[in-house]
Amino acid sequence: MHTWIVEEAGFCPEHLQRYETLFTLGNGYLGTRGSFEERYPSAQPLTLIHGVYDDAPIVHTELANAPNWLALEIRLRDHRFRLDQGEILNFRWRLDLRHGLLTRQVRWRGPDGHTFDVEFERFVSMADPHVMAVRVQVTSADYEGAIAFNAGLDGMVDNDGLRHWHWVDQGGTGEGRWAYLTLATRHTHITVAEAASLDVVGKSAVEYGFEDCPWYPRLTAVTRIVPGDTVVATKVTSVFTSREAEDVTHSALKELQRATGVGYTMLREAHCAVWDALWSRSDVIIEGDDLAQRAIRFSLFHLLIAAPRIDERVSIPAKTLSGLGYRGHVFWDTEIFMLPFFIYTHPETARRMLMYRYHTLDGARRKAASQGYEGAMFAWESAATGDETTPRWVPVWVESSQSDELVRIWCGDIEQHITADVAYAVDRYWKATGDDEFMRDYGAEIVLETARFWASRVTWCEDLGVYEIRDVIGPDENHEHVDNNAYTNAMARWNLRSGVAIMAWLEARFPERADTLRARLGLGPDDPLNWQHIADRIKLNYDEATGLIEQFDGFYTLREVAFDMYEPRTTSLQALLGIEETNRCQVLKQPDVLMLLYLHPELYPKGIVRTNWDYYTPRTDLTYGSSLGPAIQAALAARMDDVEQAQRYFELAARTDLEDARGNTADGIHGATAGGLWQAVVFGFAGVRLTEQGVCVAPCLPPSWRRLAFRLIYHGRTYKVEIGPRSWDVSVVQGVRV
Amino acid sequence: MHTWIVEEAGFCPEHLQRYETLFTLGNGYLGTRGSFEERYPSAQPLTLIHGVYDDAPIVHTELANAPNWLALEIRLRDHRFRLDQGEILNFRWRLDLRHGLLTRQVRWRGPDGHTFDVEFERFVSMADPHVMAVRVQVTSADYEGAIAFNAGLDGMVDNDGLRHWHWVDQGGTGEGRWAYLTLATRHTHITVAEAASLDVVGKSAVEYGFEDCPWYPRLTAVTRIVPGDTVVATKVTSVFTSREAEDVTHSALKELQRATGVGYTMLREAHCAVWDALWSRSDVIIEGDDLAQRAIRFSLFHLLIAAPRIDERVSIPAKTLSGLGYRGHVFWDTEIFMLPFFIYTHPETARRMLMYRYHTLDGARRKAASQGYEGAMFAWESAATGDETTPRWVPVWVESSQSDELVRIWCGDIEQHITADVAYAVDRYWKATGDDEFMRDYGAEIVLETARFWASRVTWCEDLGVYEIRDVIGPDENHEHVDNNAYTNAMARWNLRSGVAIMAWLEARFPERADTLRARLGLGPDDPLNWQHIADRIKLNYDEATGLIEQFDGFYTLREVAFDMYEPRTTSLQALLGIEETNRCQVLKQPDVLMLLYLHPELYPKGIVRTNWDYYTPRTDLTYGSSLGPAIQAALAARMDDVEQAQRYFELAARTDLEDARGNTADGIHGATAGGLWQAVVFGFAGVRLTEQGVCVAPCLPPSWRRLAFRLIYHGRTYKVEIGPRSWDVSVVQGVRV
Repeated sequence: MHTWIVEEAGFCPEHLQRYETLFTLGNGYLGTRGSFEERYPSAQPLTLIHGVYDDAPIVHTELANAPNWLALEIRLRDHRFRLDQGEILNFRWRLDLRHGLLTRQVRWRGPDGHTFDVEFERFVSMADPHVMAVRVQVTSADYEGAIAFNAGLDGMVDNDGLRHWHWVDQGGTGEGRWAYLTLATRHTHITVAEAASLDVVGKSAVEYGFEDCPWYPRLTAVTRIVPGDTVVATKVTSVFTSREAEDVTHSALKELQRATGVGYTMLREAHCAVWDALWSRSDVIIEGDDLAQRAIRFSLFHLLIAAPRIDERVSIPAKTLSGLGYRGHVFWDTEIFMLPFFIYTHPETARRMLMYRYHTLDGARRKAASQGYEGAMFAWESAATGDETTPRWVPVWVESSQSDELVRIWCGDIEQHITADVAYAVDRYWKATGDDEFMRDYGAEIVLETARFWASRVTWCEDLGVYEIRDVIGPDENHEHVDNNAYTNAMARWNLRSGVAIMAWLEARFPERADTLRARLGLGPDDPLNWQHIADRIKLNYDEATGLIEQFDGFYTLREVAFDMYEPRTTSLQALLGIEETNRCQVLKQPDVLMLLYLHPELYPKGIVRTNWDYYTPRTDLTYGSSLGPAIQAALAARMDDVEQAQRYFELAARTDLEDARGNTADGIHGATAGGLWQAVVFGFAGVRLTEQGVCVAPCLPPSWRRLAFRLIYHGRTYKVEIGPRSWDVSVVQGVRV
Repeated sequence: MHTWIVEEAGFCPEHLQRYETLFTLGNGYLGTRGSFEERYPSAQPLTLIHGVYDDAPIVHTELANAPNWLALEIRLRDHRFRLDQGEILNFRWRLDLRHGLLTRQVRWRGPDGHTFDVEFERFVSMADPHVMAVRVQVTSADYEGAIAFNAGLDGMVDNDGLRHWHWVDQGGTGEGRWAYLTLATRHTHITVAEAASLDVVGKSAVEYGFEDCPWYPRLTAVTRIVPGDTVVATKVTSVFTSREAEDVTHSALKELQRATGVGYTMLREAHCAVWDALWSRSDVIIEGDDLAQRAIRFSLFHLLIAAPRIDERVSIPAKTLSGLGYRGHVFWDTEIFMLPFFIYTHPETARRMLMYRYHTLDGARRKAASQGYEGAMFAWESAATGDETTPRWVPVWVESSQSDELVRIWCGDIEQHITADVAYAVDRYWKATGDDEFMRDYGAEIVLETARFWASRVTWCEDLGVYEIRDVIGPDENHEHVDNNAYTNAMARWNLRSGVAIMAWLEARFPERADTLRARLGLGPDDPLNWQHIADRIKLNYDEATGLIEQFDGFYTLREVAFDMYEPRTTSLQALLGIEETNRCQVLKQPDVLMLLYLHPELYPKGIVRTNWDYYTPRTDLTYGSSLGPAIQAALAARMDDVEQAQRYFELAARTDLEDARGNTADGIHGATAGGLWQAVVFGFAGVRLTEQGVCVAPCLPPSWRRLAFRLIYHGRTYKVEIGPRSWDVSVVQGVRV
């Protein structure tokens, strides 16, 4: 098995949308699904550009599907090359993870009986963030006659039927072989310009033209082909938005001119060189288990193409830029599941992602104020401004009443652990990088504002002499409106203590900044004392006798469910039991107490992990509950040296998208699973611990893994980790502490 | 004042959308708003075809905006004729109500300084239901050079951003000067084909072309123009849907060929001839009050273009086919407000509209069954199938929380009087026409099924010894969840008694049909007895001592509101007080008890009308409540000989759309107001009563009205009514009882 390749050999229309997701290309500026250049009836082409949000009903805002730059039609006399007509004699569609190249080879017999070999290659340049290119080579087996190409910018795009665009401008020339299209989002007024050039080379003369179709300017080229000959058409495109350019049309045309001058081959070379550099820092080598090897590379590929490479006002949405699922909104998935990979391999990218949270602090402050709290309360679903964008109600079809019933989604109101999760991520980045400037100028404000939030959020319970956090949803979303969720309370405690520590650190190291922040946030000398006071008295349902942590008040009294009774199944237990019944049962959607133990290995020894693992794992819907579960289970199991369980859950996570295990890969890549897989390998199987002395490992490899190797950056040093079945080696390969 | 003309002289972009509504053309098959041929930035072009519904979120279903057949661009060297550029030297835009012709004369100086006279004329043929045409004449004042026309079928249309279409097919030829576009609705799979031809005549040769733009096929024509010359471009279009044709593309092209062969002039002539015939039956002449005269013609024009002329599976939506308001749904507005005009002037159209209710009986049966009732319960908002399409929740922006809050709309659940209203309309049509066949084959089933519904709907109250109808909304929608709404209870009583009467009539006249219906509907011999029993004991809050009818149980205990306190205002009292507070106050959105008195003059003498008028009128928000109110108030006032009040409310109703009195004309014509105006004139000012001896009048004309004249069809006879200030005359002009 080629572990750098994901492939579909033989075209299967039912799987088209899944592969469109898997074959998404991107460069940290935009993502484009793997849809065919010539279109296909059931296809879902999407180009999502970071930060280009527009208003939408119910979901508040979503990334607006940008004009389709892929459009490239081939006409052979009276027929258009299209896979829903004629006959497919051979088909191979593959994504090269190593260099971010998507290729498709088709041997096709047209409706008139002539046969062609058609070979596409495309890339979204990692070297030139505003450049994308596609090349197609057509070889005739037995056809002689005209061949025409038609390369357009298709602005007639929508998001599941919703049009986000107003037309602004378009133009082009046949002689000049360039065209452009400029649109603006209807509500947020972000303009986007795309420009394209077309170049066709064969043995005959080529005649170029331009069709100024409304919303769809197109370049055309006509030439001749004879049996045995190959004609090559190259389309280079550029894109700019008003988020980064003043005159978007001018910028797009200028960049197009430059890129076309450089030419496809050199653009491709520069693109591949950047990928080489990216992988040299972040590849994870697993020898002996090709499935695991490919899964980890596939995961890192999708993280690398989705992570912002320029812009610090955007972050990675839950489904990356590869589908409409969750509408481009950013969840805790980003900080807790995806970010660690970047912290330890591309810290500059991690910093950018955390800056997104800094820039959206005002939205978080508005959310806190709107609920009567102080400080900053991060949105459960976040977009351009940091204001809450979780839909409050979603229509769900009810068979019995033959109508949509609205289901109230409470996460935007009460799934509040996200606020501590963001602060936790800031601290983790800082501890891993030693980036004091970031902490001083940006991170501290996040930590202090979130500590303020928690101090205003808790309520004192006189009877028990504890602070409580009532009416929340923990990571396990099967249970709504619970009191004293262990994860939430422990993370809040951590957040409050971090506030105390960061304030002390600022005062010691940057007293002026401490003064500034105190004044700006209205913090008095008593505030850290108060935070400490609360943190020390926050309710934690830990039973010293058993070592068990109760997920929330009263969890043990809920009804127990025999999971076996429902096997085999193809949907979640929540779907089978119903939302309300599940709320009354000991059925977890994903790890909750275990998630807490995973994030704080220093606080909970292995014995406690084992006790809680044994209790909660059989109560968690790991197959069809949340996709956030399996990788964390794998990491925890490995940490307990339970390699069998670790491998089992690792494989479950690895299958999520590559085998569409949950049936929803068409909606987009599960970004948290991708990040979780990396964590399972690094913090689970390799057992990495980050100490004052540097990177340590305590490996626990599956028996088949002959070698596990990767690099980590820690405090400016690059560590190379090499693990074999019986030995391991950690060495510093470059860098010194900054 | 020209009372056949509605005009805007001088272009005012802020009023564009209002005039697009006012200038809607139609022919009972489709409606097209008055949008400019060359487009304008803030324009809302819409073509709505009867019955072409597609699924939509929240509102369930809506009429899908069909491809824009108006698109006609004029290019003069480097400039496109467009009113947002250059200078408008003169502008006159007028709708000729007499012949359904929309014209626009513009003297325009282009950005390059040249001046042109551009004159558009368009019509939607009343003679050929699938044909529409537009002609533009361009005269150059001082320009010499190329002039190009571009006539397209624009399929890139949406409903407020929602795209309803899949592309199916398109094509055309420059030589043949024809093009077509075929699309299908995404969910309901209705295909629509439009075809267009272009003909350009000037002094120079014309070169034609065709641009096969995706979703937007376009015919082009280029010629030359010199100062003083005129070039005329004529675009004829046709449209078919799969609701009436097998091969829509073929049908559209064939009809286009025929229509183009007939030619613009003859098509226009045939169209005008039909309008002459329509007006000869339905014009209302008011001499001495030009405003009233124009308002009534304007109203009847919009009723005539919206009423189905072929199809008996559609009816007139609340906002006709002129806007997206209420999404093309059909309410009681149709039967109670609009239908009477058709019953007495175009009974064949009235019959078609009632057949729509017959064809949607199964939807009404499903609604009854879903709520646990028997018989048929008509949808508050009805579309293709008769299933309920009232949105259950609508998002309403709340300033204080800076977010959308969902407001529960209860009308689809409990505004149940619609069911009796439909039966009432059936009976009224029958009584006016003597169309026994209709009643036997269709009407009786509606009356019986609705009687069955009410019999299952009432509840017996042992204490009071009455039947009650609890938890409803009456016509006054300001009060939700009320018990024993007078209008609802009285209409239910009427409906039950009609059931008894119709069953007796069937048994006497058509015993076989009676047997068939009894068997099909599961009616036993006891059912009519039971209906009679209930009808005689239904609760009616009539106080014999005062003559007052209480709108619903406990209405008198609600808080009184001093309306004056809130004047002057530009919005409804409900908007000012809030939904919940209004529910607790004596503030009516529209007549409720008075509506009942209006519909049953035989039951309530003038004294009772006056008593209730005096009580309820000052409690009704007639300026910004429902637009259904003023015309009914006018009719009732005239019936009480209170001509001053009658004229006051008549003018209020007349201003609704012509002066955009409620600020929402852009959303579409208020069809109920249009129908209400006719009723106010005929049953109010003229005091028409329909007796066994024929049509009688008891006029009460405003002092300025020198003459009121109209025709009515009653039992197959056409009556001509002539009323002067001091005398009147009713004569039979044609027809004998069929």
